[in-house]
Amino acid sequence: MTRIFNFSAGPAVLPEEVLKQAQAELLDWHGSGMSVMEMSHRGKEFIAIAEKAEADLRELMNIPANYKVLFLQGGASAQFAMVPMNLLRGKKSADYINTGEWSKKAIKEAKKFGGVNVAATAEATNFSTVPPQKDWKLDPDAAYLHYTPNETIGGVEFSFVPQTGNVPLVADMSSTILSRPVDVTQYGLIYAGAQKNIGPAGLTIVIVREDLIGGAPAGTPSMFDYKIHAENASMYNTPPTYAWYIAGLVFDLLKKKGGLKAMAEINKRKADKLYAFIDASGGFYKNPVEKPSRSWMNVPFTLKSEALNEPFLKGAKSAGLVQLKGHRSVGGMRASIYNAMPEAGIDALIAYMRDFMSKNG
Amino acid sequence: MTRIFNFSAGPAVLPEEVLKQAQAELLDWHGSGMSVMEMSHRGKEFIAIAEKAEADLRELMNIPANYKVLFLQGGASAQFAMVPMNLLRGKKSADYINTGEWSKKAIKEAKKFGGVNVAATAEATNFSTVPPQKDWKLDPDAAYLHYTPNETIGGVEFSFVPQTGNVPLVADMSSTILSRPVDVTQYGLIYAGAQKNIGPAGLTIVIVREDLIGGAPAGTPSMFDYKIHAENASMYNTPPTYAWYIAGLVFDLLKKKGGLKAMAEINKRKADKLYAFIDASGGFYKNPVEKPSRSWMNVPFTLKSEALNEPFLKGAKSAGLVQLKGHRSVGGMRASIYNAMPEAGIDALIAYMRDFMSKNG
Repeated sequence: MTRIFNFSAGPAVLPEEVLKQAQAELLDWHGSGMSVMEMSHRGKEFIAIAEKAEADLRELMNIPANYKVLFLQGGASAQFAMVPMNLLRGKKSADYINTGEWSKKAIKEAKKFGGVNVAATAEATNFSTVPPQKDWKLDPDAAYLHYTPNETIGGVEFSFVPQTGNVPLVADMSSTILSRPVDVTQYGLIYAGAQKNIGPAGLTIVIVREDLIGGAPAGTPSMFDYKIHAENASMYNTPPTYAWYIAGLVFDLLKKKGGLKAMAEINKRKADKLYAFIDASGGFYKNPVEKPSRSWMNVPFTLKSEALNEPFLKGAKSAGLVQLKGHRSVGGMRASIYNAMPEAGIDALIAYMRDFMSKNG
Repeated sequence: MTRIFNFSAGPAVLPEEVLKQAQAELLDWHGSGMSVMEMSHRGKEFIAIAEKAEADLRELMNIPANYKVLFLQGGASAQFAMVPMNLLRGKKSADYINTGEWSKKAIKEAKKFGGVNVAATAEATNFSTVPPQKDWKLDPDAAYLHYTPNETIGGVEFSFVPQTGNVPLVADMSSTILSRPVDVTQYGLIYAGAQKNIGPAGLTIVIVREDLIGGAPAGTPSMFDYKIHAENASMYNTPPTYAWYIAGLVFDLLKKKGGLKAMAEINKRKADKLYAFIDASGGFYKNPVEKPSRSWMNVPFTLKSEALNEPFLKGAKSAGLVQLKGHRSVGGMRASIYNAMPEAGIDALIAYMRDFMSKNG
């Protein structure tokens, strides 16, 4: 078996330790004689798995007791609807910050359920910046403020947490959750699709302050009502049990690795290294994002000529570096370097980029 | 490793061949150097997995070209809302047949979105029968007729396909899909949570006739609109890739085993054997369902005294027979014997039941 370095933006690389453990116990979890995939979600074995996963996530993120942690389905795309459906609570509109593709999707979906005030947009810089909060046009009566701390496609990241006073802050942390410590108390609601930093696709984590639960109007589909999920400990219906289990293995591993502070150090080092190399390449490689807003998780870069893209990708694949093609809306390359991308992967990528440049410079 | 016989109603036992294959390629699928869990859903590896799974399901169920096959999230509970949201199409109400717990949940959810005409109910027999179609009060102008071909909790199964003329027929096949051949052309829409006869929880299969797609009103969440999923080949957002892959392994195995005709023969034999033993136990074991409506998939049974329940379950566990406790709303025992329950499991269960009866009769 030869494992490669997989720079996919999501579903993305998982820690090899987790995959090995999953493999070892795939047919027989802890002597139960069953795969986790085969367990009743209401049986004591799976309940133990589920509760440990939640407890570990609470410990990792230091989640206060007045927040519920939900393990749902539907991805961030379902949250784009669930957030306004549950959090508008009779208010006319919500504030949104537009920093790229995922912000835009959240905004488009929210408009189905109420008003949207785009309080700031980075459109003018082609989404290469994060507008500073002093320039935002916030509505003091907004139901909530929604933002995307990290834009997976544009590689743009907030270097600050928006300050919204009494207006609940809502964050789509799909591509940044668990990559560093977060002060959960600053948020009303945090959501994240699992397939980048948590586990397999098909699981969505929602962390929601209890006072924000219960505001869905009559007629909301049960599966889109946080209250129903919260009251049933995410088991109103059968949850995505296997993805929940893998997520639990990831949480356990992160604890053993020193938690989110340790991850932040590693992730910063990985990102700094790659950006430093790009910036020192004399324009052969370029990242378009302003320095303070560069993502630790997704590093888009272009080559000095588009004609080099195909040879670059081909050579990368031969070198065991895959999924580097940029998103169709941005072009060029994108290296997604989530928690589970080992530092050796960054080193290998830089070595390949250096070699490619010397041959094509 | 000792595998046990797992009679869970869902998530349920999976074929050992499938689990072994998943285990073998868990860290490296077909030399790709990646786990299927780590693959981009838009990469050529996963697209190949996804397309083969759909093609195999189409072949197994003989699904005509004018039906879309969708691989969604949210379980049957999401479908309870999606069906009326998409299929009412301006009509006032839909017909529902109430044969038990899952019918009731579908009815309750549908009432959020329009009128519900309960055209027939088996409440009077405590859900031990299926009302014959001649007694139904069908509305000729109904948007659709919804029924539950197999009630997982009550163990009640339709021995016929409802005839509805031009009114589209909608079936929740969560606990019966793939257990025998189905004439898809008789249905407008079939849906099934995966966690019984298909694969891991977190995947829902929807088979929908094309002319029924596109009727969701403005304001429907994107994730609840069949049209959006159909137009994007179930990849509007990241699908539950690993569950889709496991489902594909199951489909492939069923083809190798001779398809749904072969499965029907095995499943009938398994069920007949167990019911015959129960009926011949002189009342020590009892199944409450009328004979023509007994489920091939879920066999609830009571013991002659409730005091025997705990000793029965304890002894069963020691004999490697687990998850036999009946649903809280029914009591007693329930043996779920889906496709993946080997005939040897039925034989072992009967042997244990015989032994238990001889010691407690």
